[in-house]
Amino acid sequence: MHTSENRVNGLFGIQYPIIQAGMIWCSGWRLASAVSNAGGLGLLGAGSMYPDVLREHIAKTRAATDKPFGVNVPLLYPQIETLMDIIMQEGVSIVFTSAGNPALWTPKLRDKGITVVHVVSSTRFAEKAVAAGCDAVVAEGFEAGGHNGREETTTLCLIPAVRAAVDVPVIAAGGIYDGTTMLAAMVLGAEGVQVGSRFAATLESSAHPAFKQKVVEAKEGDTLLTLKELTPVRLLRNKFFDEVMQAYAQQAGKEQLSALLGRARAKKGMFEGDLDEGELEIGQVASSLHSIVPAAAVIEHMVAGFREKCASVQAGRFSF
Amino acid sequence: MHTSENRVNGLFGIQYPIIQAGMIWCSGWRLASAVSNAGGLGLLGAGSMYPDVLREHIAKTRAATDKPFGVNVPLLYPQIETLMDIIMQEGVSIVFTSAGNPALWTPKLRDKGITVVHVVSSTRFAEKAVAAGCDAVVAEGFEAGGHNGREETTTLCLIPAVRAAVDVPVIAAGGIYDGTTMLAAMVLGAEGVQVGSRFAATLESSAHPAFKQKVVEAKEGDTLLTLKELTPVRLLRNKFFDEVMQAYAQQAGKEQLSALLGRARAKKGMFEGDLDEGELEIGQVASSLHSIVPAAAVIEHMVAGFREKCASVQAGRFSF
Repeated sequence: MHTSENRVNGLFGIQYPIIQAGMIWCSGWRLASAVSNAGGLGLLGAGSMYPDVLREHIAKTRAATDKPFGVNVPLLYPQIETLMDIIMQEGVSIVFTSAGNPALWTPKLRDKGITVVHVVSSTRFAEKAVAAGCDAVVAEGFEAGGHNGREETTTLCLIPAVRAAVDVPVIAAGGIYDGTTMLAAMVLGAEGVQVGSRFAATLESSAHPAFKQKVVEAKEGDTLLTLKELTPVRLLRNKFFDEVMQAYAQQAGKEQLSALLGRARAKKGMFEGDLDEGELEIGQVASSLHSIVPAAAVIEHMVAGFREKCASVQAGRFSF
Repeated sequence: MHTSENRVNGLFGIQYPIIQAGMIWCSGWRLASAVSNAGGLGLLGAGSMYPDVLREHIAKTRAATDKPFGVNVPLLYPQIETLMDIIMQEGVSIVFTSAGNPALWTPKLRDKGITVVHVVSSTRFAEKAVAAGCDAVVAEGFEAGGHNGREETTTLCLIPAVRAAVDVPVIAAGGIYDGTTMLAAMVLGAEGVQVGSRFAATLESSAHPAFKQKVVEAKEGDTLLTLKELTPVRLLRNKFFDEVMQAYAQQAGKEQLSALLGRARAKKGMFEGDLDEGELEIGQVASSLHSIVPAAAVIEHMVAGFREKCASVQAGRFSF
């Protein structure tokens, strides 16, 4: 059997093409280093870190692993210049950008020899990312947790379309949590996967234990993409979510929704564990997660499940 | 290489586990017989037929093919008793039901020896369908065209969940249009696929040529699930769609939306070809369709693409 060189493994220098999403309030040095040590690519989630906190997490990740790791940067981050300076000063070699236009920062980072990947929700944005010089794209579908695209294209529809449009490696995100969903994504044209929700509910995730527990207790239909008038975001149902639904029922406009959302709701829910008042960002796959496990176990289970499913295809199990 | 017996093929007595969705205004005798003759399962879409029209289409399908075919019946059909009488009188052997509770009709149909499959959008509804006695379920994701579930679960998330919950064969729907998406669905746990949008834009589809042309010209993001206050439906953007969006912007309530929708909008758009005033139901994959082709070519292309992709997995192309 001939095994092709996997371009995502080659790009990052990793063993398995499994990227842990750089999620706000979940992805600190413990999670990133655990994933990298297990053969995947760990990402720090700079979106919920002050610049000095990021600097500290970079140092701690480096102390905890000698494997490659990266940082996820939302391009709408208020002190983006300071953040990028730290990333370059600290010699971070991999940056994933999201939530913004990659045209400005991609060339600057690549000039420093940094590998740059941008997260997109459409083929059009994928083409823009490639035009900006990105080394790969993460194509993230509607089912993903947290902030999401306006076109609502699902992972199943998005991956083949992006694959057909760009030549760089496509990393699939949204709905991927085990070896089966990983193989499906690879069949669709991805060369790697980015996994969020499954890693949010690991022992090493920096999220509050109460949030993790709520995630693994979620049932099908418990998340919904909402607040589309502001920035579309997939949330878990809770008291705050119900208040949002009530606001819609009373035909609230953009300003009222913005006032209801207020500030720091995500921190309150995901980091402080206020399950009533907080904003609980998670993907549809939460309903398929049933326990909080070590990050290394996620990787091992994914790789084993992927190989088992490949063997099923190889045995003609799906043939007719 | 051992090839497993495919349960969907066995259940319907067909060659390929590819079911053509029984879509309103698209799925008459020409399409159903063409699909059945090509080795798939053709379904008549009774939802847009008066009872006598259905009787005529059953006779014409039977005259055009000696292969198995079926009828899709929305359970909310106003004259459901009359329709079901015709189905039983005419000796139809396969019925797909949708849009309603399968508990009443499934046992009655099965008493007549009819194979019954129900279309569901959630694991809970799949379990109810199995409890009602259904022989299989179609699990249809958020990306599908036309009427859709309220929980918005995507095909990627839905199939593994339904597969884990029920023992009957699971037929995946929503986002499937070629051999690649078919293999992805099978990897996720489906044993067959139901394909709508791709067959809506075939030569044999009874839809208006102008609608078919609009479908194959659609771009990514051109459909959206809307009218959720009434029955959620995925529509292609057009003048009517823009009016719906304007109504939302003006905070229209359920009654206003209902008045705007009016009656027979789907017929106007899909059958009469009024692309401005009509309701144009189609799935997200419309943007991946580029030409109107014969139904048999869809089947041939899917089967060839499926086998090619299986061979890629077998060759270790996705291994790492």
